[in-house]
Amino acid sequence: MKELRISTDKRAGFTDITAEIRSVVGNSGVKDGLCIVFIPHTTAAVTINENADPDVQEDILDFLNDRIPERGSYRHAEGNSDAHIKSSLLGTSLNVIIKDASLVLGTWQGIYFCEFDGPRERKVWIDVIGK
Amino acid sequence: MKELRISTDKRAGFTDITAEIRSVVGNSGVKDGLCIVFIPHTTAAVTINENADPDVQEDILDFLNDRIPERGSYRHAEGNSDAHIKSSLLGTSLNVIIKDASLVLGTWQGIYFCEFDGPRERKVWIDVIGK
Amino acid sequence: MKELRISTDKRAGFTDITAEIRSVVGNSGVKDGLCIVFIPHTTAAVTINENADPDVQEDILDFLNDRIPERGSYRHAEGNSDAHIKSSLLGTSLNVIIKDASLVLGTWQGIYFCEFDGPRERKVWIDVIGK
Repeated sequence: MKELRISTDKRAGFTDITAEIRSVVGNSGVKDGLCIVFIPHTTAAVTINENADPDVQEDILDFLNDRIPERGSYRHAEGNSDAHIKSSLLGTSLNVIIKDASLVLGTWQGIYFCEFDGPRERKVWIDVIGK
Repeated sequence: MKELRISTDKRAGFTDITAEIRSVVGNSGVKDGLCIVFIPHTTAAVTINENADPDVQEDILDFLNDRIPERGSYRHAEGNSDAHIKSSLLGTSLNVIIKDASLVLGTWQGIYFCEFDGPRERKVWIDVIGK
Repeated sequence: MKELRISTDKRAGFTDITAEIRSVVGNSGVKDGLCIVFIPHTTAAVTINENADPDVQEDILDFLNDRIPERGSYRHAEGNSDAHIKSSLLGTSLNVIIKDASLVLGTWQGIYFCEFDGPRERKVWIDVIGK
C-alpha cells in the first residue's frame, strides 16, 4: 500500500491525482489486476470525471455547495456536516482495472481527490492486486 | 478484461447488463473472487437496484432529472453538466462477489448501465479476479 | 464469503458494522489484500463516515430524508421509492484495504449499514481477497 499526501488550499476543491496513481501502478510490477484508491477521511471523497474542461469540476462543486450548504440546521457542532454528507454521496473508495501494466481509464476520465472541508493536509491510499 | 458495447436510444435511461456480466463471470473459469464493473465514460454511471418493477428505475431517473436539470447556470459549454454531476453521484465502478463460479446478487438486484447524455454508443469494462 | 445478519428497528437508520468486518478480516488469514462489503438489498446501502459523533450520522439521514421524502409523486406502488433512490446514491458495495492482517481505516472512519426501508431483517456479505 502506498500513501500519497496532498495539501489542499481551499475549503472545497478537486485535485487531479491520476498521474500519481498511474505511477504507483507502473512501479508495482502488476501486469493485470485491480487498483484500489481509498480516502481515509470523512470530509473528503474520490471521484472519476472529465479531465479536459476544468469547468466540469467547478459545476460539480457548485451543484454540491448549492444543494448542501455549509450553514444549515445541522446537529453536529463542528460546522462541517455538509462535508460529511458530500463525502458519503461521492464515496471514499473506487476501483480501476489494470491491464498490460497500466491503469485503464476512458479517454476523458481523470481521478480526483475531492476536498470538502479544507484547507488541510490529506492522504490517499493506493493499493494494487494482481490476478 | 472484457468489453461490452451498448447503444443507448434516449438522453437518459437505464439498461440492464446483469446477464452479460453473469456470462463474463461464467466464462472466466474463476470459482471464487471478485467481478469489477467499470464505465469508461464521464456522463454515464453504473448502479445496482431493483430488477422487478421498472417503475423503480423511472423513479430514480425522474428524481435525478428533477433535482439536477439539463438546463441551469452551468459553466461547462457542452450542455451536459447535469450528466457529469449524475455520473459522480452514482459512480462509475462497482464490485460484485463471485462464489461457486457465479455472481452473487440479492434476490431483487440487477446491475444497470445509466445513460445521462445519450443517445450514444457506450462501453462497459468487466474484469474478474480469482482468490 | 461471510454473511452478517442485522435486525433494523426503524424505517431509516445507520448501524455500525466495523467491528464485525474487522473480525471477518482477522479470521480470514489474509495478510495483505482487499475486503469487499456488499449489501444484497435495493432499499439499503453501505457508507463510510465519522465514528465519533453520532450527530454526523443523524445529519446525513436528515439531509437524505428532507431532500428525498418518503411521500412524493413516485410511480412505484410500494411506497419506498425514496429508499431505492437513497440506495443508488450511497451505493451497495465498497472496498477496504487489508494490511498486516488488519482492515486499514482512517482515524475517524467507521463502516455503516444504512437502512432506508425498515424495520427489516438484513444481510451484509463480506469477502476477502489476498494479494
